[in-house]
Amino acid sequence: MAYAYWKSGKMSETAVFDLFFRKNPFGGEFTIYAGLSEVLKFLSNFRYSECDIEYLRSVLPPTEPAFFDYLKTVSTKDIKLYAVEEGSVIFPKVPVMRVEGPLPIVQLLETTLLNLTNYASLVATNAARFRLAAGNQKALLEFGLRRAQGPDGGLSASRYCYLGGFDGTSNVLAGKLFDIPVKGTHAHAFVTSFTNLEEVKHATLASKTGAQSVNLAEKTVEWLEKISSILNIIPGETNKGELAAFIAYAASFPSSFLCLVDTYDVQRSGMPNFLAVSLVLHSLGYRPMGVRLDSGDLAYLSNSVRRAFMTISMELEIDYLADLTIIASNDINEDTIHSLNQQGHAIDGFGIGTHLVTCQKQPALGCVFKLVEVGGLPRIKLSEDVEKVTMPGAKNVYRLYSQDGHALVDLLQRLDEPAPKAGEKVLVRHPFHESKRAYVSPTRIEPLYKLYWANEKLQENLPHLIDIRNHAKQELAKIREDHKRALNPTPYKVSVSDRLYNFIHDLWLANAPIGELS
Amino acid sequence: MAYAYWKSGKMSETAVFDLFFRKNPFGGEFTIYAGLSEVLKFLSNFRYSECDIEYLRSVLPPTEPAFFDYLKTVSTKDIKLYAVEEGSVIFPKVPVMRVEGPLPIVQLLETTLLNLTNYASLVATNAARFRLAAGNQKALLEFGLRRAQGPDGGLSASRYCYLGGFDGTSNVLAGKLFDIPVKGTHAHAFVTSFTNLEEVKHATLASKTGAQSVNLAEKTVEWLEKISSILNIIPGETNKGELAAFIAYAASFPSSFLCLVDTYDVQRSGMPNFLAVSLVLHSLGYRPMGVRLDSGDLAYLSNSVRRAFMTISMELEIDYLADLTIIASNDINEDTIHSLNQQGHAIDGFGIGTHLVTCQKQPALGCVFKLVEVGGLPRIKLSEDVEKVTMPGAKNVYRLYSQDGHALVDLLQRLDEPAPKAGEKVLVRHPFHESKRAYVSPTRIEPLYKLYWANEKLQENLPHLIDIRNHAKQELAKIREDHKRALNPTPYKVSVSDRLYNFIHDLWLANAPIGELS
Repeated sequence: MAYAYWKSGKMSETAVFDLFFRKNPFGGEFTIYAGLSEVLKFLSNFRYSECDIEYLRSVLPPTEPAFFDYLKTVSTKDIKLYAVEEGSVIFPKVPVMRVEGPLPIVQLLETTLLNLTNYASLVATNAARFRLAAGNQKALLEFGLRRAQGPDGGLSASRYCYLGGFDGTSNVLAGKLFDIPVKGTHAHAFVTSFTNLEEVKHATLASKTGAQSVNLAEKTVEWLEKISSILNIIPGETNKGELAAFIAYAASFPSSFLCLVDTYDVQRSGMPNFLAVSLVLHSLGYRPMGVRLDSGDLAYLSNSVRRAFMTISMELEIDYLADLTIIASNDINEDTIHSLNQQGHAIDGFGIGTHLVTCQKQPALGCVFKLVEVGGLPRIKLSEDVEKVTMPGAKNVYRLYSQDGHALVDLLQRLDEPAPKAGEKVLVRHPFHESKRAYVSPTRIEPLYKLYWANEKLQENLPHLIDIRNHAKQELAKIREDHKRALNPTPYKVSVSDRLYNFIHDLWLANAPIGELS
Repeated sequence: MAYAYWKSGKMSETAVFDLFFRKNPFGGEFTIYAGLSEVLKFLSNFRYSECDIEYLRSVLPPTEPAFFDYLKTVSTKDIKLYAVEEGSVIFPKVPVMRVEGPLPIVQLLETTLLNLTNYASLVATNAARFRLAAGNQKALLEFGLRRAQGPDGGLSASRYCYLGGFDGTSNVLAGKLFDIPVKGTHAHAFVTSFTNLEEVKHATLASKTGAQSVNLAEKTVEWLEKISSILNIIPGETNKGELAAFIAYAASFPSSFLCLVDTYDVQRSGMPNFLAVSLVLHSLGYRPMGVRLDSGDLAYLSNSVRRAFMTISMELEIDYLADLTIIASNDINEDTIHSLNQQGHAIDGFGIGTHLVTCQKQPALGCVFKLVEVGGLPRIKLSEDVEKVTMPGAKNVYRLYSQDGHALVDLLQRLDEPAPKAGEKVLVRHPFHESKRAYVSPTRIEPLYKLYWANEKLQENLPHLIDIRNHAKQELAKIREDHKRALNPTPYKVSVSDRLYNFIHDLWLANAPIGELS
């Protein structure tokens, strides 16, 4: 396509493209915008190497050699990029980016801009929805690396899940590169690698103050006897390989002791084994952390484990034991969390992998990149599908707020229209349905675009990931609850000015062929 | 986990892990194994840098300093990796990899091995299913980069879709790196960037022999008049910006002229505009290629376009025009292709993006990595979910073939059992259901594992991508049709030897706690 532009003498025509999507993901009515920092990094480095050009020469159909000289000169020096701030809440049809520059060059950027925006925004939105489902009090940990699209897909997932509201990741490289808290527990393999208490018979642990040191296995077996009668289980029936594994883990991490308790049987083995070791740790001045459940009925098992924690806490008069952490994993999705909430459960945190990073409920956000203007003249793309018709011309976008601080409506205008003013009545129209119109008197107006790239350099300082994460959180708070609820949320309104409405429809009619019914 | 292993003195214990999945993806009964080359590349380079170790030191709970000295020495020199050949057809429960080596080191490899196997195998399988749906005569082009999980996710998608049977990709970097044919057409933006014929009034094209040169716009307008009466459309109603774009495209690519014809209206604009330019190209000795449809009812539109091609071909007596290529895109998934086949269509090839690379129907393959042996002793993981119970001990796998060359059953055995022999009756058992047993007399036996990594180096030459692709094709041919069909396919049998069956169940009973009903 670039070659055909070049050969048609369109190298220097200035084009304007909009990047937007047509539908919020996951049946929801909001999207979190992410990926801008990577887009700007890409613009800073965009060029074709000699080796790229050699490759292109080898695969293109017969092409004039001068085109490759042109490709060598291609850069982003004449590109301007306006965008919504990363981490903002965004809505369908509102362009999150407006890119201006020489037609073939903007076109060459298309796929990469889409690639860097689509998944980033999708998975950040998914993470935000998990957060809304779980509430702010629960820990949400991203465990998705093994199911992502390769190592880099996994890094993107960790980064943008954190942006969307997760608390940490098990992806250590993501922790290192993006300064995300890393969290994890042990796996079943750690448990099954031990077979009996012989393996840990020499394991000792010093008390927290260093005053004494005990043999862990001996003390643990004593405690297992004691709690078994309280919990009405048979101490001989707990798996002793598992018990050995927990003892080894306690010796390594006495202050962050969290065990996976479902390798053999949660209630008859994992939970009492965990409690026995925990009580030794307690006697040595440490506070055990809790357990992870990775299979079975998570509502039932978490309640059962919580009851055991409370019973032991009461019997032994150790208050905090009642509140030990229960983490759940195992193929959890947004619906699972809603269902658990409805049933009642005792889970404090979720480790979520597959459904989070693959966005199983809807694995792609349909961002597109559409030409809306060339050489100052507007362009429209019609389509066999009406919802695929584009809004022509460069546009500005404003978010209008109500008196209580909530976002009311987004308003797209022609570039040369004056911005709406706070306190002044403005007519907002549905972009396609003629009769859908309303007057709004906003209390506050927020222009959504900033100029991020021009004159070969960044025009704004890029915030840190944690700041983008905070921005996303604040942005979500400004969206009304009914737009955010999981079931049948109310659509947020995206509107156009009266002038833009007429402009779109005049151009539409001018370009649609009139046929003959036959 | 590695720290706890280290601290428990398990650094040198030899462990055996199996990598396998429990269920074929997409409701199917087969999976294509992919990702092995990348796994081997990873093993060749695995180590912790000083900077990695510094980071780990900063985030781990209190840890003995000597552990970090140990981490510096970690390498794959004592690792052995057995695997099924890349591109093979594989089935649930059969480990595609057996990894042996020091327990903590194999454990440290886990997530990366899973990451490199899961998505690769999933998307290769998806591609193979699209190929089965479309048949071998259709062109299948991967257009998914914009919807993949970042640039690297896009590269993986292109690579493994080609492996699974696609013909090419629009991802130019994937073409360059992996030697995949690159294919693409132009976008709607190319069409909308032109507004009228003035823009191409000087465009000329020399005939293929160079004997003459014509003004393209003038000749095209003449042809548009001629074919309009044949096709019963109004020549003045075709969009002249679109016509200008097609003319510019023809001037650039006279020998590979393929146009996107749905920007304004396929039947009243795109198709006649395309044909007018095509007839000019024909008169100059070139052969136009065809059209792409990207919206609307693809069955109806493709038939309508084909009829127009046939009409013009007959009227003008130019045979090949009847057979011009029709490519379809627009959110196509496997079910769309089956539905199109059922309705009848005239599409020659599909450009497939979103649903292919995101594997929308099931966006993750659930590969897991389970410990089956430590220090020569078998390990079993029980679970609240019976289907999550693992098969203990290092195993060998054989595929047993029938006389007609089809795969009959996969057989897992203990490592020290003699391989089954062709022509000899063998008892195969369901791994978990006691009564499901059968005798098989295979005509041919194929051991599925090769040793790929040992003694710090590759043990096999790695095939090129095209060879893996061919292997996958041959492998699929050996699988019975009923295992491959889209609707209610027959499950392929995966079995264990009698000795392995008893071994599993003895260990299961020995590890499962007996409770008390109350």
